[in-house]
Amino acid sequence: MSSLDPTDLDLTGDVVALTRAICDIPSVSSEEKQLADAVESALSAFPHLEVLRDGDAVVARTSLGRPTRVVLAGHLDTVPIKDNLPVTTTGTGDDEILHGRGTVDMKAGVAVMLHLAAALAEPRYDVTYVFYDHEEVAAKLNGLGRLVRNHPEWLAGDFAILGEPSDGTVEGGCQGTMRIKITVPGVAAHAARSWRGSNAIHSAGAVLDVLRAYVPRQPVVEGLQYHEGLNAVKIEGGIAGNVIPDLCTIHINHRFAPDRDVAAAEAHLREVFAGFELEVTDAAPGARPGLEQPAAKEFVDLVGRTPAPKLGWTDVARFATLGVPAVNFGPGDPLLAHTDHEHVPSAEVRQALKVLTTWLS
Amino acid sequence: MSSLDPTDLDLTGDVVALTRAICDIPSVSSEEKQLADAVESALSAFPHLEVLRDGDAVVARTSLGRPTRVVLAGHLDTVPIKDNLPVTTTGTGDDEILHGRGTVDMKAGVAVMLHLAAALAEPRYDVTYVFYDHEEVAAKLNGLGRLVRNHPEWLAGDFAILGEPSDGTVEGGCQGTMRIKITVPGVAAHAARSWRGSNAIHSAGAVLDVLRAYVPRQPVVEGLQYHEGLNAVKIEGGIAGNVIPDLCTIHINHRFAPDRDVAAAEAHLREVFAGFELEVTDAAPGARPGLEQPAAKEFVDLVGRTPAPKLGWTDVARFATLGVPAVNFGPGDPLLAHTDHEHVPSAEVRQALKVLTTWLS
Repeated sequence: MSSLDPTDLDLTGDVVALTRAICDIPSVSSEEKQLADAVESALSAFPHLEVLRDGDAVVARTSLGRPTRVVLAGHLDTVPIKDNLPVTTTGTGDDEILHGRGTVDMKAGVAVMLHLAAALAEPRYDVTYVFYDHEEVAAKLNGLGRLVRNHPEWLAGDFAILGEPSDGTVEGGCQGTMRIKITVPGVAAHAARSWRGSNAIHSAGAVLDVLRAYVPRQPVVEGLQYHEGLNAVKIEGGIAGNVIPDLCTIHINHRFAPDRDVAAAEAHLREVFAGFELEVTDAAPGARPGLEQPAAKEFVDLVGRTPAPKLGWTDVARFATLGVPAVNFGPGDPLLAHTDHEHVPSAEVRQALKVLTTWLS
Repeated sequence: MSSLDPTDLDLTGDVVALTRAICDIPSVSSEEKQLADAVESALSAFPHLEVLRDGDAVVARTSLGRPTRVVLAGHLDTVPIKDNLPVTTTGTGDDEILHGRGTVDMKAGVAVMLHLAAALAEPRYDVTYVFYDHEEVAAKLNGLGRLVRNHPEWLAGDFAILGEPSDGTVEGGCQGTMRIKITVPGVAAHAARSWRGSNAIHSAGAVLDVLRAYVPRQPVVEGLQYHEGLNAVKIEGGIAGNVIPDLCTIHINHRFAPDRDVAAAEAHLREVFAGFELEVTDAAPGARPGLEQPAAKEFVDLVGRTPAPKLGWTDVARFATLGVPAVNFGPGDPLLAHTDHEHVPSAEVRQALKVLTTWLS
């Protein structure tokens, strides 16, 4: 590598400079190759790492024979650029802020991991670093999902951290999601003689009764309080203004805490909607936070802030399918993700690096 | 007119032969001109009739100075031909049946009226005969509706009979119809944090509660028992599988007995759905049967069968808007209307002619 090559990443220097450097290599989803090449190349310079590649995903890992292995993962891609590259800075010193696409979601987190990978030749746990593609687009393209299918052994570990922005707090696990379709039948008739039919929309009122009366659980799982939900997200019925409808369908989304798996969630819904025709159209399991795992406990103590539950579905659930508990932890305000004005304070990037370095040293 | 002209209609001969002759002049909606021309030409031969024309509608009337005027009306058009013309016959004598497009809906009724118009030079009531176009298509094209707009004075009278098939029974008046749209608002939110929003579909359950609890009236109006209805005919809500819906719309059809007008029906619905956002999207008034009118009473007695209420909306309501009570009475089974195998017993055609002749002589 020539020192003039713009993809020549300095992994051992300032983590904020590294954040800036990798933000300035555009990597909108499906265009991650240049950055993935730079990451692979830079990591390959360190003999304590074994570097693996699948498409535009790069995995690097130590093999020190430690009894515990942790996984640090982050995606390389960003949403489309909106005149917000190259990175600009405002402020100086502790008030310095990096502005631009990817600063929050999530190249600051990626820079922290790259720095750790280079710096820690002998971490206290074996570490697998995962940098993957296609997180910001359709789930079927997701690079982490592809690794789960193609190389699940690359992702093996006792605990995983996804470096998504979490404002420096640990967000634990995630809730599962299930979609069901309830079909309510009726008997068609001319609206002028409605009593000869049976109105499917009226009958669907009984399903809405169940939804209105439902009290969602707010269970505490490994110390984190989740909040479930059961909501109609679509309803359709009726074919013409003079016909009693013979069909009404209701699509319902259930969010369930990670103390239930997909089968338990389905059994629950079949009980709640007993007597109705119910079909599961989509399901994704949640993920337990794994905070009772010793390495995780240590990490949470180091962060020094009360962990929060992750209510939305995230890629941590992909680790859960492999039996690896996972949390989100990364610099930046998640509410700025995908905004044209995303930005991250340099101090948060350095703080994240400091916490993780302490944990792994 | 030459006797070889196929449009040379013999109005004074056998009414069944006349039915067959006018069925064999195709007159699918928008193609009524040839039949309208033949009807106009044939009626013009009778000096006791004044013949008027508007588009493909033909009106003929006596002006004998009688204190009572009755209106007999029928449409000239048919639904599309399906290999069911020219007319064929099965059986003989009292068992003869005419098969083919228009035999039931409603050229047998038209033939009866044409025969009466020609035969009754001095009926006991003044009579207006109305033959109109475009009944089988969109309401805005309806020829009777056009006459109501262009020449309401042509339709003036004390009582009207539409010759639609009614199995030889008098079907009185018709129910009104009103469509409303109820809009139920909500507050959008991500489905993972549903408590931050308000689910419009769930809230729509309160509208379905009202519909399920509603007990329709079955009022007796001028001796006929009607049967109202209030039914959701369409429901829509939801935009995506992970979004709490902020809007649900319910379209409701109300059928109301002719003791209520459109304003009363709307007031009723606003009371029933008090508190909901309600918009009237369509309304058509019903029609009182007018059976308390002396000429109507005589007619019903002559028919000798218990009159039935008309529950669906029909063109009799167009007379109602002019203050003319109206009923349906005509040969043929209404359930055969629009079927490819529509057919009418010749005896029913002759019976209808006999009843009307007796009434008007």
